[in-house]
Amino acid sequence: MDAQANYQRLVSNIVALESAEALLSYDQQTAMPKKGIEARSEVAGKLATLVFDALTSNELADAIKALESEDRLQPEVLASLRSVSKVHRRMRSIPADVYEAFATDRARGQAAWEEARERNDFDTFLPYLERMVGYAKQFAECYGYTGSPYDALLDIYESGMTSQQLDGIIQPLREQLVPFLQELRDNGQAPDKACLEGAFPVAAQRKLSLQALSQLGYDFESGRLDEAVHPFTSGIGAGDVRLTTRFRETDLMSGLFGTLHEGGHALYEQGVPTTLHPLRLAGGSSFGIHESQSRMYENLIGRSLPFWRHFHPELSKAFPQFASVETETLYRAINTVTPSFIRVEADEVTYNLHIMLRYELETELMTDRLAVEDLPERWNQAMEDYLGIRPSSDRDGVLQDVHWSVGYFGYFPTYMLGNLYCAQLFATLRKDLPKLDEQITSGQFAPLLEWLRKHVHRHGAAVEPVELIERVTGEAPNSQFFVDYVRSKYADIYRL
Amino acid sequence: MDAQANYQRLVSNIVALESAEALLSYDQQTAMPKKGIEARSEVAGKLATLVFDALTSNELADAIKALESEDRLQPEVLASLRSVSKVHRRMRSIPADVYEAFATDRARGQAAWEEARERNDFDTFLPYLERMVGYAKQFAECYGYTGSPYDALLDIYESGMTSQQLDGIIQPLREQLVPFLQELRDNGQAPDKACLEGAFPVAAQRKLSLQALSQLGYDFESGRLDEAVHPFTSGIGAGDVRLTTRFRETDLMSGLFGTLHEGGHALYEQGVPTTLHPLRLAGGSSFGIHESQSRMYENLIGRSLPFWRHFHPELSKAFPQFASVETETLYRAINTVTPSFIRVEADEVTYNLHIMLRYELETELMTDRLAVEDLPERWNQAMEDYLGIRPSSDRDGVLQDVHWSVGYFGYFPTYMLGNLYCAQLFATLRKDLPKLDEQITSGQFAPLLEWLRKHVHRHGAAVEPVELIERVTGEAPNSQFFVDYVRSKYADIYRL
Repeated sequence: MDAQANYQRLVSNIVALESAEALLSYDQQTAMPKKGIEARSEVAGKLATLVFDALTSNELADAIKALESEDRLQPEVLASLRSVSKVHRRMRSIPADVYEAFATDRARGQAAWEEARERNDFDTFLPYLERMVGYAKQFAECYGYTGSPYDALLDIYESGMTSQQLDGIIQPLREQLVPFLQELRDNGQAPDKACLEGAFPVAAQRKLSLQALSQLGYDFESGRLDEAVHPFTSGIGAGDVRLTTRFRETDLMSGLFGTLHEGGHALYEQGVPTTLHPLRLAGGSSFGIHESQSRMYENLIGRSLPFWRHFHPELSKAFPQFASVETETLYRAINTVTPSFIRVEADEVTYNLHIMLRYELETELMTDRLAVEDLPERWNQAMEDYLGIRPSSDRDGVLQDVHWSVGYFGYFPTYMLGNLYCAQLFATLRKDLPKLDEQITSGQFAPLLEWLRKHVHRHGAAVEPVELIERVTGEAPNSQFFVDYVRSKYADIYRL
Repeated sequence: MDAQANYQRLVSNIVALESAEALLSYDQQTAMPKKGIEARSEVAGKLATLVFDALTSNELADAIKALESEDRLQPEVLASLRSVSKVHRRMRSIPADVYEAFATDRARGQAAWEEARERNDFDTFLPYLERMVGYAKQFAECYGYTGSPYDALLDIYESGMTSQQLDGIIQPLREQLVPFLQELRDNGQAPDKACLEGAFPVAAQRKLSLQALSQLGYDFESGRLDEAVHPFTSGIGAGDVRLTTRFRETDLMSGLFGTLHEGGHALYEQGVPTTLHPLRLAGGSSFGIHESQSRMYENLIGRSLPFWRHFHPELSKAFPQFASVETETLYRAINTVTPSFIRVEADEVTYNLHIMLRYELETELMTDRLAVEDLPERWNQAMEDYLGIRPSSDRDGVLQDVHWSVGYFGYFPTYMLGNLYCAQLFATLRKDLPKLDEQITSGQFAPLLEWLRKHVHRHGAAVEPVELIERVTGEAPNSQFFVDYVRSKYADIYRL
């Protein structure tokens, strides 16, 4: 067998195992009966071991080495080699006994976090969190880096991005966003949200979500919508990209926007060519680029006036009380800005401030400028600086997210990058599609999707995030597009 | 690691992979979007290879050998060793290249069968079927046998059963069943089925099925009911035993009895202790014993007068047109006997005749007493002898079942054994529970389930079928209990 065929055989085996893993997880969160959890954990653990063994095997090491010495590889094969060898080397860099201890401590850490959050008791979580911070630092050393140790972690989620780049993006964002928020609060006219109140039967909400997805171009022959406590999207395999949402009877918009958000993720993966799947390039360029697609459909499309000009009649058909509401009133109601403690409930203006705060704390932890025990105080102070509010409990503060308890340091910035990439891509998209607003107002979502397919989706993970943004927009990733978008939209809504 | 721990580690790894396989298959039949099929086939194929490799590995061979030389093993470990080593030796007995060719030909065989059935064209299927018959004979030689080559195949599905035993069971069955059917047709008063006609909304049917399952004792925290084109039950793992059914708006009873049938399978596996799972003993004693549990709930309970005395009011709540029907009329309507061409639609009296016919043809094929090309004529003649009707097309005859096209020779008899075991177990059950009819009439299904749990379910696959029947009923498997049951029930219904 030649080097490329051998490499592809090994990688496609890994892809198959990861597909089975994805299904196990999807089923666990959407369908599995309660008492199946113990056996399921065992099966998932065994599959995870198989995947780990395959990704770190000497056979794969040899196959990578052999392929790296070949000339004239196709771009997709090169991209696969780059991405797979990165994961392979990263995983092999951690001694087996350390990784095993980490896996155990991580399970304990998550359990401790759940209990600590429940009881609002940071102190019992502290030793577990210290251990997770310790692992993150140790792993950064194993992975290696040139600038900051934080770069080694960030690279897991946002390949090629550095904290230096990130600082350069964030500084102007902070400088403009914090005062703009202040201005909205001081001088803005907050919209009236009364029209969103009421009880909305879940069956009708589900129908509305299905309708929206279908209009956006989601292919139900290549996926399905289910419900889960924590909504997510899962690319199970070529032709099988499923998404979940969560409906609450008293909160119509949370279910619909959850669907639009996950719908953006799902449209991305449905748009990746099947040829990229066996090369392990089907999952999207990076966490940030993935988030840019979900934010596109959730916010830049889903929370726009043209969208509601189109979708308002559909909404009124499902829930007749909306027939008497002005579209403009509805649009303003779903675009209120309210500084709040909880990231996942944050609006477009404040969301990135929640992330900046976490990013700063993470980098300080990784470079020993902050002790874990001082986190709560540092958190609360930053909340006051950025959002003007101070949590009265750690449950509403440093204990709110699961990420750190399971060792996901370097992950949070990708949420922010998603928002920034999204606005930057959208500016180019608008230039290329001058009639976008009219199209959306008349329910034509195909040109939008075609543009995203052509410029983003079809590359899968074959193009790295920074390169993708530069290629499409002609500029390095930056925050100005986002700031301009937010300023213009919210100055209008808040009558500034 | 000691011999037992090492053996258990290897076997529990296989169990975990098989659990993932079960989920992939369940999902494919109940939830997977249409376009996911190609990628899914690939994943399923890779997992099947992993399972095959694990079951035939030298490591497992060594572990079996080491454990076989140990003394004082617990009965469950011994049972596991017996069962796993049997599968291991059987699989290893087939040369790898032969097995690979078989897997390919099997896929082709199934496709050819589907097309041939569609076009009612046995001749195009003939060469594929000849190949499958060839493999079956070759495999029987590989597996080894003492009596007939058919025994080697039968043993896959009904461990320990021989064709000699089977002949001894079948002969008196045929001798009594064929004339009894004739008597029913000549002198019986056929029930009026008019009350079952109508349209029955699927949502209400689904609710009724869920209600019945719940009353029978099915644990919805350890399973769920879904819908599939070909209903089946799947033990995905401990605490996760799911079943499927199929609803047709114009055929109320087919959905409900489908649920009761699969419910019997599912109750069986829900009753297997979790300790047997990692030993690969969770799947039931044999195909025949499994079928005895499904037939118990479908026929001996579900088609009984006490059941309908209890369930008729529930049915009338769901479908008010039944309120004006007499329970006895309903009971007789769902127990009509009609010789028909299609096995899966056959009633209690004629079903076993369909199986006998297949069994005879299979043994003749395996012992070279029948040429594959003569199958259609031989089939049609046997139909006339046993059921008094002759199919006018092969689609309604030899082409109706998928089994032979995929090489399942030796499988059919287990359907019949299920019916016979069921009646034999039920006779003992009745003695042990003298108030069974009153209990069922008043909707108390717990004593029944407790009895089955104690005598059948809790053993999982740790006790072989013949031994299980002998232990519980004090007699070797035989057909007299079934004949007595059918005679007494249908003589009454048909006013003989």
